[in-house]
Amino acid sequence: MNKQIILGIDPGIATVGFGIISCQSSPPIGNSLKINQPSSLIKPIELLDFGTIETPAKTPIGHRLCIIYDDLNTLVKEIQPDLVAIEKLFFYRMSSTITVAQARGVIMLVLAQSNLTYVEFTPAQIKQALTGYGNADKHEVQLAVARELELDDIPRPDDAADGIAVALTAWFNL
Amino acid sequence: MNKQIILGIDPGIATVGFGIISCQSSPPIGNSLKINQPSSLIKPIELLDFGTIETPAKTPIGHRLCIIYDDLNTLVKEIQPDLVAIEKLFFYRMSSTITVAQARGVIMLVLAQSNLTYVEFTPAQIKQALTGYGNADKHEVQLAVARELELDDIPRPDDAADGIAVALTAWFNL
Repeated sequence: MNKQIILGIDPGIATVGFGIISCQSSPPIGNSLKINQPSSLIKPIELLDFGTIETPAKTPIGHRLCIIYDDLNTLVKEIQPDLVAIEKLFFYRMSSTITVAQARGVIMLVLAQSNLTYVEFTPAQIKQALTGYGNADKHEVQLAVARELELDDIPRPDDAADGIAVALTAWFNL
Repeated sequence: MNKQIILGIDPGIATVGFGIISCQSSPPIGNSLKINQPSSLIKPIELLDFGTIETPAKTPIGHRLCIIYDDLNTLVKEIQPDLVAIEKLFFYRMSSTITVAQARGVIMLVLAQSNLTYVEFTPAQIKQALTGYGNADKHEVQLAVARELELDDIPRPDDAADGIAVALTAWFNL
């Protein structure tokens, strides 16, 4: 079975959320995979890690971008993902969007410098993939993340859960 | 006389314009500087260089961001500016703004990684500084750039002229 590591990223300037899953190269269709193996061996998807890169408020934007650059570089070198999935920007407020887009530029730079393949998903695509419904709210998406990964609790903080959701969306789309 | 090198940057994803000026640490007030020196020696401001960083269209955004990162790094290491001035984003179209903001994030990362001091100006501030009129059109600003630097022609391409205009604005605001 061909395993892949997918890194999901939720971009931001204060917090970059990420989730790392290990999965088959494609999601199982129905129960077809269970035919020849005991079900305890069938774990098509596993949550390896999740977390956030945080940057201090009230520091110059350039300094915060340096932290994102350095920490994300460390992360991708450590986990060497086969695929990276990154959330596309949702356009809500002018100033926030520009600031988050600047952070996203640095994130995409790191991915390109490390020769990583990436895919992008809009918030609606992520909601659709996780809940079957493009207008699902944040909590519904988080519940779907926990259910999909058979977790007892919703992963915290929210940005990390969002990172996992992006990784799962990439998996569903393999 | 305390000389400074100012690098002005007009951010973009296809083209990053830049202009490099050498100037006194503050602009002359009236003719006061001419008192003890022949006027031929008085050159409060000089255009050292200008140009663009270009990225190929139809290549992945990450690759284009890598080019901007590498070329700008080379440029700042070479000229070692005392001050960098960068144009703030003007918010015109959703998709362009996000793309340009991503490039701007990479530019600000390079400046921060090189420990460079930067200042930011809005398009209206640049127009105001160059022409005395915040709604001046592009051509009026370019004419002001040429006049201020005693150039025979408007610098080309437009993005390079815009880079020089940002550097001049920083000089006026020293």
